[in-house]
Amino acid sequence: MSVNQQRFDAVCARAREAMILHSTADTLEWDERTGLPIAAGEYRAQQVSTLRALVHQRRTDPVYGEDLLSLVQECGDEDPHGPIAATIRELHRDWQRDCKLPTQLVERMSRATVRGQQTWDAARKADDFSMFEKTLEHVIDLKREAGERLSEGTDRSVYEALLDEYEPDARVEDIQQVFDNLREPLVQLIAAAKDAPKQPDISILERTYCMENQRDFSHFVAEQTGFDFDRGRLDETSHPFCTTLGPNDCRILTRYDPHWLPAGLFGTMHEAGHGMYEQGLRPDWFGLPPGSYVSLGIHESQSRLWENQVGRSRPFWEWLYPQALEAFATQLEGVSLDSFYFAINTVRPSLIRVEADEATYNLHIIIRFDLERQLIDGTLSVKDLPEAWNSRYQSDLGICPSSDADGVLQDVHWSAGLIGYFPTYTLGNVAAAQLFDAASDQIGDLNELFAEGEFRLLLDWLRERIHFDGRCYSGADLIQRATGKPLCSTHFVNYLKSKLEPLYGITGS
Amino acid sequence: MSVNQQRFDAVCARAREAMILHSTADTLEWDERTGLPIAAGEYRAQQVSTLRALVHQRRTDPVYGEDLLSLVQECGDEDPHGPIAATIRELHRDWQRDCKLPTQLVERMSRATVRGQQTWDAARKADDFSMFEKTLEHVIDLKREAGERLSEGTDRSVYEALLDEYEPDARVEDIQQVFDNLREPLVQLIAAAKDAPKQPDISILERTYCMENQRDFSHFVAEQTGFDFDRGRLDETSHPFCTTLGPNDCRILTRYDPHWLPAGLFGTMHEAGHGMYEQGLRPDWFGLPPGSYVSLGIHESQSRLWENQVGRSRPFWEWLYPQALEAFATQLEGVSLDSFYFAINTVRPSLIRVEADEATYNLHIIIRFDLERQLIDGTLSVKDLPEAWNSRYQSDLGICPSSDADGVLQDVHWSAGLIGYFPTYTLGNVAAAQLFDAASDQIGDLNELFAEGEFRLLLDWLRERIHFDGRCYSGADLIQRATGKPLCSTHFVNYLKSKLEPLYGITGS
Repeated sequence: MSVNQQRFDAVCARAREAMILHSTADTLEWDERTGLPIAAGEYRAQQVSTLRALVHQRRTDPVYGEDLLSLVQECGDEDPHGPIAATIRELHRDWQRDCKLPTQLVERMSRATVRGQQTWDAARKADDFSMFEKTLEHVIDLKREAGERLSEGTDRSVYEALLDEYEPDARVEDIQQVFDNLREPLVQLIAAAKDAPKQPDISILERTYCMENQRDFSHFVAEQTGFDFDRGRLDETSHPFCTTLGPNDCRILTRYDPHWLPAGLFGTMHEAGHGMYEQGLRPDWFGLPPGSYVSLGIHESQSRLWENQVGRSRPFWEWLYPQALEAFATQLEGVSLDSFYFAINTVRPSLIRVEADEATYNLHIIIRFDLERQLIDGTLSVKDLPEAWNSRYQSDLGICPSSDADGVLQDVHWSAGLIGYFPTYTLGNVAAAQLFDAASDQIGDLNELFAEGEFRLLLDWLRERIHFDGRCYSGADLIQRATGKPLCSTHFVNYLKSKLEPLYGITGS
Repeated sequence: MSVNQQRFDAVCARAREAMILHSTADTLEWDERTGLPIAAGEYRAQQVSTLRALVHQRRTDPVYGEDLLSLVQECGDEDPHGPIAATIRELHRDWQRDCKLPTQLVERMSRATVRGQQTWDAARKADDFSMFEKTLEHVIDLKREAGERLSEGTDRSVYEALLDEYEPDARVEDIQQVFDNLREPLVQLIAAAKDAPKQPDISILERTYCMENQRDFSHFVAEQTGFDFDRGRLDETSHPFCTTLGPNDCRILTRYDPHWLPAGLFGTMHEAGHGMYEQGLRPDWFGLPPGSYVSLGIHESQSRLWENQVGRSRPFWEWLYPQALEAFATQLEGVSLDSFYFAINTVRPSLIRVEADEATYNLHIIIRFDLERQLIDGTLSVKDLPEAWNSRYQSDLGICPSSDADGVLQDVHWSAGLIGYFPTYTLGNVAAAQLFDAASDQIGDLNELFAEGEFRLLLDWLRERIHFDGRCYSGADLIQRATGKPLCSTHFVNYLKSKLEPLYGITGS
């Protein structure tokens, strides 16, 4: 039996049409986060939720579903990892998922989360969690309802059903295992760094860095490492992100801090890493599974690899530092490459996740992973969230936020209904280290290339091993195929130790 | 018989839903014109045309049409200029018009005009009309087809049917009459200025004006004159415009030229004038006729009034000039208020419409009005357009563009399918002068207010007489009610003469 071409084309056309509306809603959200007039929020929420509902209607259309079911039956002979079988399998998977959510719930979630982000933004600026409490409660309730519907008839928990949207097939147990394997070595490394004989001078990163020069420098770095500005742009926002509005329209957003150089610079490299993944997907499959990212863990592996394995490496700065000295002549006067390199690799417990170092970062994630599961299963109420947050920061990182803005209000995610999203960040960190080791083994000395400002070979390797396939393989399969083994936290721990121990003068344990 | 409330509500809900999609398409276009990545144009055209088709489907829905027909019959007792009767009358009018255009044609026009603007932009940058020729031919053909369908069964010409979209009920004959009455006095005034004993020094406006200061200054002026930045924003683009994306989301766009101060400054005042009209409409009627602008001629009267009657008046600069001297200390050093005021009121034939002075501006319009009618009736082919353009500039303005970029390619309108749009600019100029005279009569000495930086009384007068009513009255009715007589070109001619003759030392004719 073979796939009926006409049916296949009809299904693809419908999926692409839904994507046109979906990417339009994403454009509205991009616009919202780059400077919507203050009074325009309510109408924007109406626009976005109308669009999201239209998308949902199309994706749950019964005729479309019947066609998909027929195609699933017809495609037995197809290569399961070819674009045709993958399109059918993954669209069918999406369809099953989408059908579990009534349009009305989707529309309510969409409205609640657009308004949620607006309220969050205001509450964060006012440093007042109470402004946000009711809104967040509403979002959590809706997400719980969605999770219940999605988990029905499966062996997944409500939380896992939500997680599945970002990391298909992921299990809490497996994630817990990875996190448990990380926690101990990280805590040890952080403690060792704290008491180490050598300490960085981070004040050099806190000098006043002119915004205009930061903008130019970040743009230069994104371009040099491979982000294609003919097919994308770089803007500013209060909470950096990356969004794709069309096959040739990837938007990355960053945030510059005049007194903290790493925020804008590494923020840009991070988002450019996401952007390069999106730009590496096949444009002719845009809107269909072979042209879509496979999971957020894989997405994050790309952003973190460029931000950290590349951007915080010494050879990278051997290439870039002379140019940094030109761009920031006053600020970096008399600062050696070694001092700068040590400063950007500082390990130190801090309050803000997006500005955390590579070691403590994952402790931020573990806290969020634990708290959001409690919010969903009802063992933690939104009202008690700030206290729970602060007490976990005290116990896990040894510091306590003095304000909600620097604490529980720092991230946009929950306001946007992104529950089950946070763990993918740490999965991405772990995958980045493993992929980078495999790339080094297969390409040869990446350090030599970086010191010359040459990133093309690495990008090409990622394009071929990760980007190109879209959703034709699962995320786990991609890791296995690219690195020869399943995801494992050893690479990440070794990477951190081999970089940080010499820097801090820590003697091997 | 009275209006069935349920039916009325249903019709309003449908119209508002269509507006949500319409304003979303407008957001996509705003985004396109503020920095779409170069390779993203094709997909953006697909997005916009999909949305436009969805809007068209909703606006031509048969059930919606039946409801409107019933409502038309039911509303005999309603005040014809109240919001209910106006909503029914105008939505019915729109529905009749929309039904004459098949969805497929709307979609084709939308795609052709989005691509048309992209091609126009590239052709203008390359200064090469031939790149644009085929695209424009296609747009003209589609607009002609639309005009033929719209004029069917009416006593309107094809061109008038297109014009009707921008200036409801307007007749070519009437416009011609207004233009004829203007042409002679304007030509005389322009000739008199050329040979006048006093001449301005425009070089002071051509000095290098730092872009950043221009931005700040323009923002300040827009805000002070009454544009509400909580409900709108100001951005930059290659062809200035104003667009409304929601009841509290009006976007104005300008273009700064480092060597021509008036471009950005008066461009901003012009667009802010449009914006204040939009912001003066009732937000709770957004998406319905009482909350929509009535015609482009009225729209333009608002932009030109703020740009010219206010922005190029001496009392306005008595207030603003000290602040200009601070913002542009080097450039304006030693320049007297009188010299500056004379320079910004220079009359001199030039090539670019948007930078033309108040007198010659209308000659630019008359040329376009004539040429576009010929394009539509087929007496001029697109291939011959550049030659026709250049020869009209030679005969009417006595100058000839040396490049297509400064000639036939200067305006976005035709590429965007805006045929019948240009004459509304001159109708707006004429209406602005007439409205300003009426406001002066009714409010008292506006000059004294402007010299104090006080614009609120004028804005309130416009809000009450023009903005508030939306489409509850026709444009002609609004002029009649606000000024006590029909549109007449005398006010405009008198306004120009009374300003320019003393400046140039022209002795009254």
